[in-house]
Amino acid sequence: MIIKKTRLLFAASALVTIAIASIVSAEDTDKAQLERARTFFKALPDSVHVDDYPHSKARVELGKSLFFETRVSSDGRLSCAACHNPSYHGADSLALSVGVHGAKLPRNAPTVFNTPLLIAQHYGGNRTSVEEQAMKALLSPLAYGNASYADVEAKLKTLGYSKKFEQAFPNEAEPVTAENWAVAIGAFERTLLTPAPFDKYLKGDIRAISKEARLGMDKFISMGCVGCHSGTVVGGQSFQKFGITEDYWLATGSKEMELLKGRDKGRYHDTKKDEDMYVFKVPQLRNVAMTPPYFHDGSVAKLDDAVRVMARLQLGQKISDTDVALIVAFLESLSGTVPAQFATVPALPVSPYMN
Amino acid sequence: MIIKKTRLLFAASALVTIAIASIVSAEDTDKAQLERARTFFKALPDSVHVDDYPHSKARVELGKSLFFETRVSSDGRLSCAACHNPSYHGADSLALSVGVHGAKLPRNAPTVFNTPLLIAQHYGGNRTSVEEQAMKALLSPLAYGNASYADVEAKLKTLGYSKKFEQAFPNEAEPVTAENWAVAIGAFERTLLTPAPFDKYLKGDIRAISKEARLGMDKFISMGCVGCHSGTVVGGQSFQKFGITEDYWLATGSKEMELLKGRDKGRYHDTKKDEDMYVFKVPQLRNVAMTPPYFHDGSVAKLDDAVRVMARLQLGQKISDTDVALIVAFLESLSGTVPAQFATVPALPVSPYMN
Repeated sequence: MIIKKTRLLFAASALVTIAIASIVSAEDTDKAQLERARTFFKALPDSVHVDDYPHSKARVELGKSLFFETRVSSDGRLSCAACHNPSYHGADSLALSVGVHGAKLPRNAPTVFNTPLLIAQHYGGNRTSVEEQAMKALLSPLAYGNASYADVEAKLKTLGYSKKFEQAFPNEAEPVTAENWAVAIGAFERTLLTPAPFDKYLKGDIRAISKEARLGMDKFISMGCVGCHSGTVVGGQSFQKFGITEDYWLATGSKEMELLKGRDKGRYHDTKKDEDMYVFKVPQLRNVAMTPPYFHDGSVAKLDDAVRVMARLQLGQKISDTDVALIVAFLESLSGTVPAQFATVPALPVSPYMN
Repeated sequence: MIIKKTRLLFAASALVTIAIASIVSAEDTDKAQLERARTFFKALPDSVHVDDYPHSKARVELGKSLFFETRVSSDGRLSCAACHNPSYHGADSLALSVGVHGAKLPRNAPTVFNTPLLIAQHYGGNRTSVEEQAMKALLSPLAYGNASYADVEAKLKTLGYSKKFEQAFPNEAEPVTAENWAVAIGAFERTLLTPAPFDKYLKGDIRAISKEARLGMDKFISMGCVGCHSGTVVGGQSFQKFGITEDYWLATGSKEMELLKGRDKGRYHDTKKDEDMYVFKVPQLRNVAMTPPYFHDGSVAKLDDAVRVMARLQLGQKISDTDVALIVAFLESLSGTVPAQFATVPALPVSPYMN
């Protein structure tokens, strides 16, 4: 009986030892996995205000008003929020965005969230900053459709914005300018960061994302997706040809490839250089699960299909459904919350638009 | 010296008596003024949910989502909030509103605030309730532009609204219907009341509105404006010809009259009855100072001009600038705050619109 008890105790103790060992081993794996993740990805900063664009409360508030202001556009109805809508996670949910007078734009609108952290703006990367993007949108015939910056400035004065510009740009003799319109909007946009469960994970909270998400992250790394999609916003730092291993407009033979449309020449449109043919800015993947449809022309509706397209066209790999699901779980961990200051829309100056 | 002191005391006492008398008299005047006001105007109720349209938290929340939902419209971009925008006090600030595919509507969009308290919806009054207005907008070619209610219902299911409809209409076998779309939106709209300083005044707080506003109110009553603009929402309870004392499209000879445009035949468009020629629903005047431009066609940009037009065309009176300013002060006391549940826009289901 004593022997039996001792043996039982020994057996139990051995089991505990194994259990502890396996926990330690799991912790080691988790830690190693996290360390590996940290070599590819970075948590979001608290803000992205930079020296070139000093901000103030008045400037950010003015920028917020201007972001939602429709009466500066040539039909009195378009605002930044039309394509970057708080209800749709900073995008518009359309395949192709729409500008003034119902004009269909040639490309999909990405979310505005975290965009100050991108290498450039637009799929063609032909806007160096969010400020330049905002400013040039004013005169684009398909976007705001204004005839001149002088027209924009006159509109802003008529609408009653002069005092707000004075407060936001206190040391300027003539603060109501298109440049300051853009700087104010940029100041607001630079507050629109969306920390996600993945950031908690990167900061050390292993359980902040699911085991599937972590396995998906490993797959995302091992397959080579991180070649382009890494860093703070998981992409957005480089330009790449759409269709490295296959011409994207010729790719057929699977449901996903049949979804691809058009022959957008990418940066070639702007540069006319052969090496820019079909080259686009690599989009960030933060909030990707919240902002379908996908790619520069919004031709693919579902995230799993988009993953399959990328695996084949960029990496030359056929990917299993299991791995797609894991990668999607990882991408879902990149979804942040809509910033509160974005979901609460501002009251704008009382002024009629006599269309 | 004693005599002098007594005389001084007497004189001081007389002054106090006069001062008290004048205060009492002012109070009497204030009270009489308030009592007179109460015979014409009523404070806003707390809610306007009615037996025909029982509401619940789930129903109001669904209605809010649907109010901001653009993907039910035929171009994927129009929502109730396009014409009834939180940034513009529940209106759109345009003279003439714009529907799907940039279609210009024939009339000005009024604010959505307090509209369940109106006798009918639309300037023609051809919608009996906010629910009927919402429902019929779905098929109007200039508004949402849908082909059929079946199309709308299919869209709602595709967008992922089925569960929300089940929660909002728990005892129905097939809750995803266009009728319930309208009932839910109505439930939300019935929460959009805007108590104003004038309500505090009507409840007895004399100083809640300025002396000018009260003098303007007296003028508004004595001139006869209250003949149409009375009650809870200061109008909105009757139909009236635009141009009683003069044909409105022939009225000339003053700056204000030259602003009037067009020959909208009013209710005649729908009824084809001669007595409905140029007859419109009398609009409410709550929030009128916050929602220019004015009249069915939005042809008048400024509130003071609108007051002058009304005085001449409806009452046959030329009104002094002083009286216009007083009436405008009164109308400004009808401006309420944008309801918080309206200014915070909802996150909508994640679902692409493949335009």
